[in-house]
Order: sequence, then C-alpha cells, then structure tokens
Amino acid sequence: MNPFHNQSVVSIRDLGRDRLEAVFEATDRIRTMPPERRRELCRGRTLGYVFYEPSTRTRLSFEAAMSSLGGSSLGHADAASSSAKKGESLADTVRTISAYSDVVVLRHPLDGSSRFAAEVSSKPVINAGSGTEEHPTQALLDIYTIKKEKGRVDGLNIGIVGDLKHGRTVYSLLYGLSGYDVNVHLVSPPSLRIRPEFAYGTKRRMKMSTYGDLGECAGEMDVLYVTRIQRERFADAEEYAKVRGSYVVGLDMLRRMRPDSIIMHPLPRVDEIAPEVDSTPHARYFEQAEYGKHVRAALLHLLLNKDA
Amino acid sequence: MNPFHNQSVVSIRDLGRDRLEAVFEATDRIRTMPPERRRELCRGRTLGYVFYEPSTRTRLSFEAAMSSLGGSSLGHADAASSSAKKGESLADTVRTISAYSDVVVLRHPLDGSSRFAAEVSSKPVINAGSGTEEHPTQALLDIYTIKKEKGRVDGLNIGIVGDLKHGRTVYSLLYGLSGYDVNVHLVSPPSLRIRPEFAYGTKRRMKMSTYGDLGECAGEMDVLYVTRIQRERFADAEEYAKVRGSYVVGLDMLRRMRPDSIIMHPLPRVDEIAPEVDSTPHARYFEQAEYGKHVRAALLHLLLNKDA
Amino acid sequence: MNPFHNQSVVSIRDLGRDRLEAVFEATDRIRTMPPERRRELCRGRTLGYVFYEPSTRTRLSFEAAMSSLGGSSLGHADAASSSAKKGESLADTVRTISAYSDVVVLRHPLDGSSRFAAEVSSKPVINAGSGTEEHPTQALLDIYTIKKEKGRVDGLNIGIVGDLKHGRTVYSLLYGLSGYDVNVHLVSPPSLRIRPEFAYGTKRRMKMSTYGDLGECAGEMDVLYVTRIQRERFADAEEYAKVRGSYVVGLDMLRRMRPDSIIMHPLPRVDEIAPEVDSTPHARYFEQAEYGKHVRAALLHLLLNKDA
Repeated sequence: MNPFHNQSVVSIRDLGRDRLEAVFEATDRIRTMPPERRRELCRGRTLGYVFYEPSTRTRLSFEAAMSSLGGSSLGHADAASSSAKKGESLADTVRTISAYSDVVVLRHPLDGSSRFAAEVSSKPVINAGSGTEEHPTQALLDIYTIKKEKGRVDGLNIGIVGDLKHGRTVYSLLYGLSGYDVNVHLVSPPSLRIRPEFAYGTKRRMKMSTYGDLGECAGEMDVLYVTRIQRERFADAEEYAKVRGSYVVGLDMLRRMRPDSIIMHPLPRVDEIAPEVDSTPHARYFEQAEYGKHVRAALLHLLLNKDA
Repeated sequence: MNPFHNQSVVSIRDLGRDRLEAVFEATDRIRTMPPERRRELCRGRTLGYVFYEPSTRTRLSFEAAMSSLGGSSLGHADAASSSAKKGESLADTVRTISAYSDVVVLRHPLDGSSRFAAEVSSKPVINAGSGTEEHPTQALLDIYTIKKEKGRVDGLNIGIVGDLKHGRTVYSLLYGLSGYDVNVHLVSPPSLRIRPEFAYGTKRRMKMSTYGDLGECAGEMDVLYVTRIQRERFADAEEYAKVRGSYVVGLDMLRRMRPDSIIMHPLPRVDEIAPEVDSTPHARYFEQAEYGKHVRAALLHLLLNKDA
Repeated sequence: MNPFHNQSVVSIRDLGRDRLEAVFEATDRIRTMPPERRRELCRGRTLGYVFYEPSTRTRLSFEAAMSSLGGSSLGHADAASSSAKKGESLADTVRTISAYSDVVVLRHPLDGSSRFAAEVSSKPVINAGSGTEEHPTQALLDIYTIKKEKGRVDGLNIGIVGDLKHGRTVYSLLYGLSGYDVNVHLVSPPSLRIRPEFAYGTKRRMKMSTYGDLGECAGEMDVLYVTRIQRERFADAEEYAKVRGSYVVGLDMLRRMRPDSIIMHPLPRVDEIAPEVDSTPHARYFEQAEYGKHVRAALLHLLLNKDA
C-alpha cells in the first residue's frame, strides 16, 4: 500500500523530502506511460473542486490531470458566490461535495481551511492554495520542474525574485526546498521581503541569502524563479516605476546569466518577464505548466489507488 | 422494457407508489454494483442541463450521478443569463440542448415549464425543480433515504418543520408520501403553513396534522424533516427572532425525541439545525445527499437504457 | 495520413472545396458509426476551450462533439474575465491551455487572433469565431446541412436574409459556398448589406445577387438561411419597425416558397422566424444544430487521429 492512499494533502510541511521524491517517481511513471494505460488509472472516479477564490488556471490543471487518468471533475468554481452567499458553512459545502466525489480539491483564502476540511470530509482533500503560505501542489510541480530541467536539485543556486512577501507560492516553494542542499537567493524590494515571522525549521538543509537587486546575483543562478510584482502593492506609482526595472527579466538580464540557467514562473505572467525571453532556451514556464498537470495526476493516482 | 425508458419525469404526481418503488429497487442495484460495472451503464451518454435558477447543489448531484454511470454532462448553469438574455425562448433552448445530449435536466421558476419542455424536446426531460410545487427527484431521494434509514416508510411518523408555504421540496415530498400509510406532522409558524389551495388527492393514504411548535410533537417522530426558514419571509426582524427558536433543532430538542429518530434536511442548511447535531446518530442529511446521487443515477439509467 | 492531422483550422478560406468535402465524408462516417465505436475515437483526449466572447451554444456544441468521441473538455468559458483581467496575454493563455489539452478551441473578438494563437500553441487550434468574418466550423455545418437536406449543393438557389453586414456567420458561409456552383440571393435592408470591401476571390464559382425584400426572390429559393436583425443596429425604432416585416419568415412567406425549400438559421433565433414555422416540413434549424455536433466531431477526429 502506498503511504498517500486516502490521505489528505494539506501542507507541503507535512511532506518530507522522501514523500516529495515518491511523488516525483510516480510522476515519472505517469509521464512515460502509454496514454491508453494512463487513462485507466482513475476511470470512473470523480474529482470534486471547491474554489472560494476563483483560480481558473489551477482548477484547469487539476481537471486536466484527472482527465488524463480517465476520471472526471465537477464542483464549485466560485464557491464564494454559489455556496457561501446562501449562508452555507465551509464544513457543509465540503461534506456535500465529498458525497459527490472521490477526492476534494479546495482553494480557500484562510490559513487552516484545508486541514479543517480534511477533518470533516469523507474523502481525501487536496489543498489547492490556502491562506498566506500553503500551495503544496504548486511547490511539488516547481521542484519537479527544477529536477527534470536541471537533472538534480541538490547543489543548485536558485534565485527567487519579485514580491516575496505576498503570495503563497514562494512560501510553499521554500518549505519544499528546505530539505534539499540548495542555495536560495531571495531578491526583492525591501518592502516585499519574506515576512520575518516566517520560520523554515531549524533542521533545514537549504541556505538562504537576501538581495535588493537581481543584477547582484543573476550570474550565479542555475534557476531563476520569477514572481509577479503587483502594482497595487505600492502606494506610489512612481516608487513602483523606480523599482520595477530591478526585478524584470529581459534579454539584457539573460546575457548576465549562465548559459544553462533556466527561468521559471508560476504564471500568469504580466510584464515581469519580457516576451522576447519566451523563445530563448532559458524559458521553461510553459514546460512547468505541463509538468504541473502530470505532478497533479501522479498525486491523484497515489491518493485514489492503494497499489499505485 | 422498463416503463421509464425514454419517458420524461415532470412531476412526482405522475409517479404512483409502484413507480417510486421501481426507482428505489433500481437504486439498490446501482448502489451495490461494482463501480467498474456501474460506469459502463451510460458510457458515452451525455446529460444536458438547463438551469434558469442557478442551483449548484442539484446540478452537481446530477453531474455526479451521470459521472458514476460513465457518462458526461454539459449545459447552461445559468440559462437566464446565457440564453434568455439573448431573447431565446425556453423551447429553443431546450430543443438545442436536446440536440447535444441524451437526456435534458431542467430547472425553471415557472409551473408547467418542465411539461412544456418535455413536449418540445427530442430527448426525455427530468424536472430538477420548477414553480412552486415540483421537485420530483428531491422527493424520490427523500423517501429513499427514509426507507433505507428506517427500514420502511409505512407506519412512520414524519415531522416536516420550517417554512412549509414556500419551497417546492415540501410539496413534492408530500405528494410522494401520499401513497404511503404515514402520519405527517406539519410544524410551522401560522404564516408559513402549507398553502390552503393545495390538494393531495382524495385517495391518499397519508394522514396529516398541523402544529405551531415543534415541541408539541417532537417526541413521537420517527423522522424529522427540517427546512430552512428564510429571514426575508418576515416583515419584522423581531417577529422572526421570536418564532425562530420553535423550529430550530438543537441538542435540547434531540433529547425530547426518540432515540432512533432521524433528522433530514434537503440542504443547504443555515442555522435551523445546530452544528452539534451533526455528530449525533440522529443526523442523516449528508447520507441523504449521497443517496441523492444514487437515486438520480438510477433514474438516468432507467430513462436511458431500455433493459435497465 | 489525413491532411488535417495536427493542423489548425483558422479560416474557412484556407479550406478549398476538396477539404470541405473531406470533412463531410468524415461526418457521414461519424454519424453512421455505432456509438460504442464512436466513443473510442478520442477516448482520453481533452479539448481545451478559450472563449473571450462567451458563446454557450458554440461551446456546448464542441463539448457535445468531444463527448460523443469519448473525450472531455475543459477551459475558460469567459476568458475575458478569468485571464485577460489579470493582465495575461492571449499568447500565454493559449500556451497554457495547450499544455492542458490536445486541441484548443478559441473564440476571440479580433481578426487574426486564431492565426496568432495557432502560431504560439503547441496543439492544433480551431477557430470558433473571430473578428468580423471568420467562423469556419459554422460554415462547415451550414453547408453540410444543405448537402444532407437537399441532397447536393451545386445548382441550388440559396437565399441569405437579415443583417448581412454584421455577423461573421454570413461571411464564412459565403466563403465556404464560393467553391460551389450556387446562386446566392442576398436579402437585406440597404444599411445592412454585405460590406463592400469584402471580396470573395476572382475564381469563385458562386453567383450573387442582391435584394431589398424577401418577397422578390422567395419563390425561387431552395434554401433560405435566416439571420437575426438586431434592433440595436437601427438608430431609430420606427425605422426598424418599418423594415422588420420584410425579413421575417412566417406562414405567409412560406406559402410563397417552393414546397421543398428549407429554412435554416444559425440560432439563437429571436423573432425573425415565427414559431408556427417550426412544425412545418421547411424548418431545419434544429437538425442543423444536431448536424453541427457531428461536423465538429468529425473535425476533432481528423485533427487528433493520423489515420482518421
């Protein structure tokens, strides 16, 4: 029996490096499997999604994953309107969707929502993003992408650039990477640094350093993970205009980077990576999206099939 | 050939006790069937839904049912926006969706809408709620739940509490129960009693009595069916606050009930059943939701397969 | 290998008569195939849709087509809200959906959008309506309907009535018909005539003539293709009221038509065809919708299967 069977995936912090590697091995198997075998793995199974924050992209990635396994998806794309407005509690919405499906995928603005949902649900719950820190499947697909595109994770220099303060993607990625021997370079304006109250555990293997300008460390990076800086985070438009250039990846920046470095992005991208970068061999963000489908398929397979 | 094949399900009043029992028998077969057999029953079939009143829960229940049979679903989740706004008639919307699917599931605010739709549709129509009285699949799943959880329907004392005036669920349930030897206890504030113009047929076997307070009859009930009382039904917030307590089921009320009594609710629930009730053996509303999926699957199977 | 395999379908102008006939032959095969064989053709394949202009009908037709082949569908029903509002470019949205699916179906308000999408997509793109002129699958299904219902296309008199200026359906139909020996009769108020800058190629076989009143040519028509005249196109309500009668098909108009003539409409219809016409043998618009599902299924089959 695989250890994921019938278990909820609530936090990346619940998964040690061993569990991450188990998901990656399952992903390798899923990806290389003939489609006609893959689509038997969850035939007749149903994924039920409940999204209190609409996120078409994450939802479609899960739907595509389930579809590739022969299963189907249904649910609340906008639960804040469809359920919460009628006064229904999160618990009741989750209990009901778990009566209609084999696995529940939940996106919710509050910390702890997924753990609570896992307690009341009759089916395993996958956290598709909650609160300030948690987006475990995004972290899984990010690290899987690094591993596939660079051949390994240990020993790499990984830059994370942009708005590091907001956005659960960055925190989940850091938690996920903390079990690897990596050097993480955190690049952001001072006002958008990682929240200080944030702790990555005392036993972490990952090393971290902080920069104010991407140019300072770009030349050392094996992986550059770019995140969006939202204009709304700045009170003053001019202040934004001033810093913006320091965190944008264009052809100029690429020339300062190692020829085998890769650029990643959780998407959607606005203007933090110039379109000219897309056609260079550095760009891997669309591959990342495709890997994401397979990582999520592997996870669904592990949760739903005892002998996966 | 089964008598449901290719027939529309427009009103619970069209179905006598024999037909109800036939659906229940099919439901028993569906529920106990191995999933790999069940998902062949409607493989490659398509359910088309048209909801003029959005109702995510009922729609998802039908989708889950179709999915469990190996079929798929598509349609208008909000037809009042997507079709009616463009000036398209109900007839044209139904005719078109029936060109795209094998069975049409319709929710519409007007009485008679489903019967009209069944006339113009090239495929059988299932009424998923219409007008003031009709919600036949809800009545089917309610009575199926009673039967499974109490072992029988005849001879039971069934309380229905809350807003009995509005809400098609109550009327459909009463029509459905009218062929059984049951004692129905109707509990509501005077202003929310069953509409007097409402007739259940002169040959009904069901007996009915009326109460103003749940406490008066709680001790006799085998089944307590709780419905929502909407604040908006009261002109005066204080009047609402006054009566509210008489129709809420909490642990206090449970102590006055028989130990083997069960609590049902069509969901969504707001505050008419206290959350503490959920973990008692009386609570059956989430089981009811799960039965609903199977009852609808059985009905789809009967409509779509001649030899079901 | 079939010539459609892995190719995008961007414009009806890219498809000569030979290609149209190839789609029609595939449609004949799809329609007459036992459902259990048909639903194997795209089993486990996924259609990804991106609709910047919501069009439930076209989307459902594609979903129904994919479903009949055993595949599934996912995507952005309202991409203008879900992606564009976040500032994501068309290119990125298309690239991402192509990572999640095997074929991309795009509806977009701008001319050229589909060709651009086909360039950036890793999967074939089908144009489901773009800009002022292009709706290639609508033209395919329209001409297929004519062929099936009249037994041929060459030699027919085909009237197109209504608002010919706006609406991509008319332009695509004309492009599609231009390779056939047909007489097209264009009937519209002067202000809603085909745009003069519009050119159908110098080698076209189709002949065209223009009328201001349907009564002038109704008696000669084999096929009458009716389109909607939108009130909003007229500055003056009275002007609209005056002309409206000349373009509406009712029983009076039918009496002036040949007994074997057929009436088509791309739907949704508002009041340009009277409901009394629906039950006459002339009416074919709901058959047209059903053919549409099969034509789109044939196209999906051709694009996705090398040996189709």
